[in-house]
Amino acid sequence: MSDRGRPTPRPFFPASAGFAEGRSTPRAFLEGCLEELERWEPAVGAFTNTAVKEARRAADESAGRWKAGRPRSAIDGMPVGVKDIIDTDDMPTGNGSPLYDGYRPRFSAASAQALREAGAVILGKTVTTEFASTQPRGTRNPWDLARTPGGSSSGSAAAVAAGMASGALGTQVVGSIIRPSGFCGVHGFKPSFGGINRGGSLDFLSQSCTGPIAASLADAWILARAISAEVGGDPGHPGLGGPLLPPPPRAPRRLGLLRTAGWAVAGEGARAALEAAAAALGRAGVEVLRPETHGPLAALEAAVAGALPETQRMLAWEWRWPLNAFVARDREALSTSTRDRAEVARRITRDEYASLLQRRRHARALLAAVMTECDALIGITAPGAAPVGLGATGDPACAAAGSYLGGPVVALPLLWDEDLPLGLQLLGAAGADEELFAHAAWLERQLAVGAAGKS
Amino acid sequence: MSDRGRPTPRPFFPASAGFAEGRSTPRAFLEGCLEELERWEPAVGAFTNTAVKEARRAADESAGRWKAGRPRSAIDGMPVGVKDIIDTDDMPTGNGSPLYDGYRPRFSAASAQALREAGAVILGKTVTTEFASTQPRGTRNPWDLARTPGGSSSGSAAAVAAGMASGALGTQVVGSIIRPSGFCGVHGFKPSFGGINRGGSLDFLSQSCTGPIAASLADAWILARAISAEVGGDPGHPGLGGPLLPPPPRAPRRLGLLRTAGWAVAGEGARAALEAAAAALGRAGVEVLRPETHGPLAALEAAVAGALPETQRMLAWEWRWPLNAFVARDREALSTSTRDRAEVARRITRDEYASLLQRRRHARALLAAVMTECDALIGITAPGAAPVGLGATGDPACAAAGSYLGGPVVALPLLWDEDLPLGLQLLGAAGADEELFAHAAWLERQLAVGAAGKS
Repeated sequence: MSDRGRPTPRPFFPASAGFAEGRSTPRAFLEGCLEELERWEPAVGAFTNTAVKEARRAADESAGRWKAGRPRSAIDGMPVGVKDIIDTDDMPTGNGSPLYDGYRPRFSAASAQALREAGAVILGKTVTTEFASTQPRGTRNPWDLARTPGGSSSGSAAAVAAGMASGALGTQVVGSIIRPSGFCGVHGFKPSFGGINRGGSLDFLSQSCTGPIAASLADAWILARAISAEVGGDPGHPGLGGPLLPPPPRAPRRLGLLRTAGWAVAGEGARAALEAAAAALGRAGVEVLRPETHGPLAALEAAVAGALPETQRMLAWEWRWPLNAFVARDREALSTSTRDRAEVARRITRDEYASLLQRRRHARALLAAVMTECDALIGITAPGAAPVGLGATGDPACAAAGSYLGGPVVALPLLWDEDLPLGLQLLGAAGADEELFAHAAWLERQLAVGAAGKS
Repeated sequence: MSDRGRPTPRPFFPASAGFAEGRSTPRAFLEGCLEELERWEPAVGAFTNTAVKEARRAADESAGRWKAGRPRSAIDGMPVGVKDIIDTDDMPTGNGSPLYDGYRPRFSAASAQALREAGAVILGKTVTTEFASTQPRGTRNPWDLARTPGGSSSGSAAAVAAGMASGALGTQVVGSIIRPSGFCGVHGFKPSFGGINRGGSLDFLSQSCTGPIAASLADAWILARAISAEVGGDPGHPGLGGPLLPPPPRAPRRLGLLRTAGWAVAGEGARAALEAAAAALGRAGVEVLRPETHGPLAALEAAVAGALPETQRMLAWEWRWPLNAFVARDREALSTSTRDRAEVARRITRDEYASLLQRRRHARALLAAVMTECDALIGITAPGAAPVGLGATGDPACAAAGSYLGGPVVALPLLWDEDLPLGLQLLGAAGADEELFAHAAWLERQLAVGAAGKS
């Protein structure tokens, strides 16, 4: 922890009630975020660009709408960051690469345009790894500046953790929302595949999703849902549905423990934290199924054992373009890891890719089967707390399973490791995002005592 | 027909054999296309941009590779056009709208980058309707300059028809490859959904595809297949497979007649042309099933009866973005029809969209059932020859079914109406693109006598 004190997220949803009642204003709320920006940003480096003047104007406009009793949505006035692979029409998009230096998109991406239509206050663009892949771009973890915030949605997680914004858009194809949310002690939500329209972002892969990182579970929901209300999901998918306000808590009857390949490399602290949570849930009357004694869950564990390497092979194929166009333009501008991937991509065959897709479909069918018996699956967001060093963004072995399986995942800041935050991930059935949030809200209330005890 | 003579496509595939044998060169082939460009382009207006100098250089480089016995692919040296919603890094992309005036993309789209890697000679960008939708942009039909070439791939079809290029990339979400191919007397190919990587084009809809319009069936195949070999299909789809060279002709045992909603408005000439083709196929020993006497085919006809209006509702939803971003930037720059669509889009609900997707899935299941009994389905590409006038691009009622059903479709220039070309469309099972081409090659050989008799 730095001498700036403990990073403290600033939830928007309960605060916004005060806007309607005249006790506060979106501008005042924004100024609170700007104070945190001043305090934290020079050390953390969460943003590639900020638009403070425009944000203040947008907050004032929002204040007028709340005062008139006509907010555009539940996120009207919410200060948000936008991951820098998502276009906004008033700031450059860097995509984490010098290949995009000076690139100014003409139109906002679907999610960013939706934020504006919903009245959100876009404070800036948040740092992403190179092309939302593995190569970090310097953001530090507010809990410990020597550590990574995770990636690829590095800046989004760090900004929300430090209270610089209540929410931020991230994207995840392997673990890029869930892992940094866990490392930074904030809430992350990867919707069911197709849940939020990805148009206008460098986010085109067959299991990638746009999703929020937020100061509270409620903020994660209202942010995601406000976007899908404006622009829907990906073409061909119905998109995230459900209420515009957060689903009320609902007790699960039965949960399944999904360890994933990350368990084998997880530290004692992370393992103990998950087991303690499972025990607490048991005491609260929730049955927790384990793969050792539950056949379908064991089959699912086996099917996701190779989720990370298989995903990496699939993504290498799917990256043939635009990597070939990047290489043609300026190979030297790419990181070594990206150049390596371009080489790997050229050696993968269509047959191998088709077979990987088939294996993923099989794993998804196994998830659907398990979810007829469970309300959700629980696990850790990473094998341990954020590792020291800024040269890598941490191990995605735990989070990869959720992307591979395609259903919704939320990261809840309920576990601790090395006195640092570690997320509890909760996975649901594809399309059952609302139900997952209802159970997550219940879990968070049940397990919050343990988390508060650490503060 | 104009005083320029009859428009004559210039097939590449047999000609390219001469490159290897030293009898001709890609440069000489290109010069032949450039002569047609000079003759036709001022009247037809197929291109938004040409890159003649760059094309000549590319053709000379190709000549060197053929001479050395190392062509990069079967389309090395093929002069091609690229529809102007597909980015190329050396020309502007206009997307058929003043909103994109002066827009110069930094990287080539997947299909355009693949063309370069395969050695094709990109001659220019071809005219598209506004956003590849309905509003025409002035291209004329080389068979009759008073008539539309069809749309939205207007320039691609006109350029190939007049021999200005052997092939051109088109895109289709309703009938935008098949209809203009029919109207212009050339070959069109809409692959199975997902067959060709659409990255880097304004072509993001849930049933849209990139596909070639070409001077011959063989050219359509080698063009499409060379692209998928370099950049695969859409992420999540295996992409177009099969041999790199054209599949050899194969006689179908049984075909089904798919009339579609377009039959009700089809003219006598178009109906008679299709019936004559069916009769000729019957004489050649092919059984032709009809919905009147075949239950599954009747069910399929019923399921695609509303394909066009249902597709239009789905697309309106899917266009919420970027239409909202376009409206936010400059509503006046949009055509009236596009502004209307933006209004329609806002009134469609998620539930309606989800239900439309469900109906489409049902229709696709019916297609799969029919295709266990048929080798392909045949129909007309439009209710008649290209209509007079440049204010609209013709009725997509016949072609819409193929997009809705998601399988591969080829348009063959085998029918005539009003002494003008009309396409025979051949539809296949999703993923069975190679088989469809094999049957199409056989059909073309069988029915070619009838077509030649009209010249």
